Amino acid sequence: MPATAYPRTDRSTATRARDRMSYDRAAIHAVIDEAYHCHLAFVVDGEPRLLPTLHIRVGETLYLHGSTGSYLMLAARGDGLPVSVAITHLDALILARSQVHHSANYRSVVAHGTARLVADPATKRRVLDALLERIATGRSQDSRPPTDAELAATAVLGLPLAEASLRARTGGVVDDEADLDLPHWAGVVPVSTTLGRPEPAPGVVLPPPLLSGPA
Amino acid sequence: MPATAYPRTDRSTATRARDRMSYDRAAIHAVIDEAYHCHLAFVVDGEPRLLPTLHIRVGETLYLHGSTGSYLMLAARGDGLPVSVAITHLDALILARSQVHHSANYRSVVAHGTARLVADPATKRRVLDALLERIATGRSQDSRPPTDAELAATAVLGLPLAEASLRARTGGVVDDEADLDLPHWAGVVPVSTTLGRPEPAPGVVLPPPLLSGPA
Repeated sequence: MPATAYPRTDRSTATRARDRMSYDRAAIHAVIDEAYHCHLAFVVDGEPRLLPTLHIRVGETLYLHGSTGSYLMLAARGDGLPVSVAITHLDALILARSQVHHSANYRSVVAHGTARLVADPATKRRVLDALLERIATGRSQDSRPPTDAELAATAVLGLPLAEASLRARTGGVVDDEADLDLPHWAGVVPVSTTLGRPEPAPGVVLPPPLLSGPA
Repeated sequence: MPATAYPRTDRSTATRARDRMSYDRAAIHAVIDEAYHCHLAFVVDGEPRLLPTLHIRVGETLYLHGSTGSYLMLAARGDGLPVSVAITHLDALILARSQVHHSANYRSVVAHGTARLVADPATKRRVLDALLERIATGRSQDSRPPTDAELAATAVLGLPLAEASLRARTGGVVDDEADLDLPHWAGVVPVSTTLGRPEPAPGVVLPPPLLSGPA
């Protein structure tokens, strides 16, 4: 059994607003699992690079969908690639009476570590299956599995979840006492991400799969 | 008048799927303006760091909301901080008949450059005003402006938009010809981000402001 929390490190410890930080494993998993996409940062020639990609968590590994052609993948072939991965949900806009107390509710996980290309075909198949099941229950069976050649052309990076933190703001407006009677609206505006009605491709008459939804 | 497109550089040119790339200024502005938050990558001791923050574009500068306490801000006090900023909209999930052709529609802008702390109080006031107007029309007037002390405690980073690119996937399912008759559903599942009904803070009876909406 892994510990219930990830360890705190210099780079995963906030320098302010520490009360917004959590290292709880289950809470971090939940934020990761709710999202379809993440942002991946790495360093090339001393400069930061950043790109969005799709991800899926399987146990304590975060798998990232990649592309064989990019320098990212080349970089990942040696000792692995030091990365930061962020997954963020914007949950609400906070409108305060004073300008500086405007804020946002959010949940954001940042994981640090070394990402490596997944070479094992069986693992890659399991990752693809997990990615499809995240989208729709049963989809890994209700779709054509990859050929060996397709699998070889599909790059997957694996990042062990060993150093991860969750930063979140929840709750309502925090205004200064002296501002509470000002004649300005204050409150919370929820932000939500939802799946729309599935639009079948031309000629498709089958019923759509059972979508798992963003949450 | 700036050119209608940003220049292509090594780091803003994709090594594959180049047809998905655009450098069009108006298209890039539109993607930035539709989003409330972005991800900011930078390098500390050779390692990638990544965090989410709120942003607002004013002309050809992307302003990022920061915090005075963090090393990010300290780093920004000298020659500026080399950063990558990404703003991504997930627009749809693409379910193909074959596993490997599953994909996502998205629009993602990545900007590279050197971010600097904004010192000028007048500029900071304009940035805060723009951020509030993005949330709700008229909100910069219908809220208490910052005192000089509040303004001094509010850190804003400015990133000139000189090197930016847009990567997007649009459209429907792309399956192999040989797979079109397979008995699996295929199609597009739209993903959308929406604002919910404003929830007033305790005691607030004023009508809510006119929200600008995510799009």
